[in-house]
Amino acid sequence: MDRISVEEYADRIAALVADPDRGTSTVDLRDALDRVTADAVSTSIDLPPFRNSQMDGYAVRVADLPADGAAVLVGSTTAAGDAGATLPSGGAIKVMTGAPLPVDADAVVPVERVERLDDGSIRIRAAVHAGDYVREPGSDAPAGTVVVPPRTRLRPRHLAAIAAAGVAAVTVTRRVRVAVVSTGRELVEVGAELGPGQLPDANAIALAAAAAADGAEVVHVGRAPDDAEAVAREVEAARAAGAHLVVTSGGISMGDFEPVRALLGEHGGTIGTVEMQPGGPQAHGSIRGLPILAFPGNPVSAQVSYALFLSPLLRAWAGLPPAVRRRLALAEPVAVPPGRRRFLRARLDERGAVVPIGGTGSHLVTAMAAADVLIDLPPQFGDLPAGALVDTVEL
Amino acid sequence: MDRISVEEYADRIAALVADPDRGTSTVDLRDALDRVTADAVSTSIDLPPFRNSQMDGYAVRVADLPADGAAVLVGSTTAAGDAGATLPSGGAIKVMTGAPLPVDADAVVPVERVERLDDGSIRIRAAVHAGDYVREPGSDAPAGTVVVPPRTRLRPRHLAAIAAAGVAAVTVTRRVRVAVVSTGRELVEVGAELGPGQLPDANAIALAAAAAADGAEVVHVGRAPDDAEAVAREVEAARAAGAHLVVTSGGISMGDFEPVRALLGEHGGTIGTVEMQPGGPQAHGSIRGLPILAFPGNPVSAQVSYALFLSPLLRAWAGLPPAVRRRLALAEPVAVPPGRRRFLRARLDERGAVVPIGGTGSHLVTAMAAADVLIDLPPQFGDLPAGALVDTVEL
Repeated sequence: MDRISVEEYADRIAALVADPDRGTSTVDLRDALDRVTADAVSTSIDLPPFRNSQMDGYAVRVADLPADGAAVLVGSTTAAGDAGATLPSGGAIKVMTGAPLPVDADAVVPVERVERLDDGSIRIRAAVHAGDYVREPGSDAPAGTVVVPPRTRLRPRHLAAIAAAGVAAVTVTRRVRVAVVSTGRELVEVGAELGPGQLPDANAIALAAAAAADGAEVVHVGRAPDDAEAVAREVEAARAAGAHLVVTSGGISMGDFEPVRALLGEHGGTIGTVEMQPGGPQAHGSIRGLPILAFPGNPVSAQVSYALFLSPLLRAWAGLPPAVRRRLALAEPVAVPPGRRRFLRARLDERGAVVPIGGTGSHLVTAMAAADVLIDLPPQFGDLPAGALVDTVEL
Repeated sequence: MDRISVEEYADRIAALVADPDRGTSTVDLRDALDRVTADAVSTSIDLPPFRNSQMDGYAVRVADLPADGAAVLVGSTTAAGDAGATLPSGGAIKVMTGAPLPVDADAVVPVERVERLDDGSIRIRAAVHAGDYVREPGSDAPAGTVVVPPRTRLRPRHLAAIAAAGVAAVTVTRRVRVAVVSTGRELVEVGAELGPGQLPDANAIALAAAAAADGAEVVHVGRAPDDAEAVAREVEAARAAGAHLVVTSGGISMGDFEPVRALLGEHGGTIGTVEMQPGGPQAHGSIRGLPILAFPGNPVSAQVSYALFLSPLLRAWAGLPPAVRRRLALAEPVAVPPGRRRFLRARLDERGAVVPIGGTGSHLVTAMAAADVLIDLPPQFGDLPAGALVDTVEL
């Protein structure tokens, strides 16, 4: 692979792992938040299912009301949940919001518009028209209407509509299953005592959390020292766990101990350089049909690689919106060494202006942690004054 | 309570349930995504912990290099994870990115800048300065530095920094615990056969999902028919489950069967009207110290009430950003009956303009499901032309 652009590399990765066929499952509505519908969800009942009152008031039949404003007899009260009653001849029935209307009623007079008389009858103080404050069956959605389309990420408002349709379970697309494998002899479990030259394996935790945050299911997290066979074993463990793709970090640069590079080389993978800093060295391939995305091992490089190449795919498959990209003003001047396209870490100040933090080093994990956005600077950019507009990607 | 504004009512609710004291717990970093730090997290080690190479290249001591560009002897290779070696006198050691530097080395020459000679020695083709491509211990963060401040919602980049600091568990604020109680004799379990006048209980599912989506823990979901004692039993079940607050829907309007209204009335609660449609009737109070937020029962009213009064609080406590509010253009004219402030359901079209859907009825759950935003229209607004700017709240 020659040196290629971020966009070209993103396209290659999208082609490599194209929306994995992952089947569907049926989940109870209570467990369906943020899942993605596989099919349209339709209502099998009219919504609302029966004629009911839009107000607390009096159900009447307009044609039977006295023309002279005389008192109207009131029968028994009907609350929501009561089966429909019938109107007394020429009279009214008190109804609560949502209550079924008497079969012969055609309007509701809100309580605020009547005068209650001492004998329990009412006098109506406003004009009444047939249909006033009546919710007809199916006026929200007739039976058979699609209430939630396919490929919808189910938010509470969707669950409300599905529940109102009397549907207790939905068919959703299964989550994409991701495995995360760190490589590097220097890595030890986070929290373990560090020997000379050793580092905690931060990438496994960060990449697994990132994939989960983007709606994937993380089915395997492993670590392999600096040899290709150990990486191959982790890839097979990922396959056994049902992974649709494996994300590795480390082991792909120009050093002498580059196990991922070696393994992908054996399997016809692609190793090369993307025009970006951090994260220039990149590799990918497939091992017996299982796609491998190989990110560099520096923690900031790995996180930036994830944000640019994998996050957009996982988010799309999970029905999540893409990361917000905005053009924002720099809060202070920035001196940028010429060269490759750079993704600088930056925070937003109180006014929403961009403050670069931590310099360009790909080992600066604390600056990455403090960042709100990446600044996307074209190559050969040179120095920028305060107030200059820059492209940003939200983290 | 007189008729009060949305903002005044939101303030009252914020005062009623003010950030509950909920204690802390310590969680493994692998389970810490989206939790909120209770304390600052500091690194007890230098980051990076040892001097290491920023590039694959050759570690050298600048003062010992031949001035005439002569060949430099190369000793054994050091990979990341190797304990530090020492330089051969006047020579170099090949180092991989991240590898510890020999104790007497003070610069790294990248592989791209040397010529390899047949005898295994190298000729350096560029000027070398002390410090080049050397990462000093603590250059990202010296031991003792705060890597993540308190009250931070832990995203993958924060977990990466904490892991890099060798910290395997973090102290987080416990989630706010919410109970959800639906009232109304007409309600049955979602999926159950509907008798005459009956409706599936959509509010319980929608409000529980909404609280979970906003970072709360839902500890009890119950349903009470139209009597105050049944609601009181649900409140006590919520208390037993450790709830910090109870959200009810239904039972607070002007009908004759209003169990939440009755119960709150017994306990000195507040019942009244907020200047909004839908969701005008509102009530709240405390029962032996347990705050009760009582929303109206119409599903759209309940959801809009939640979005305006509870969601902002839960999101702030969970470290989530507030719902996005934007001023957007109407895609088409809107006829709005004069009266109260209205929250209309609307979707965004391809150009980001606002298309109202489904009218003003508070029973229109399918329109709510299809909405992307609420349009916040001031009272007495009247008709609006296409292109008019309106305030919106993202759903």
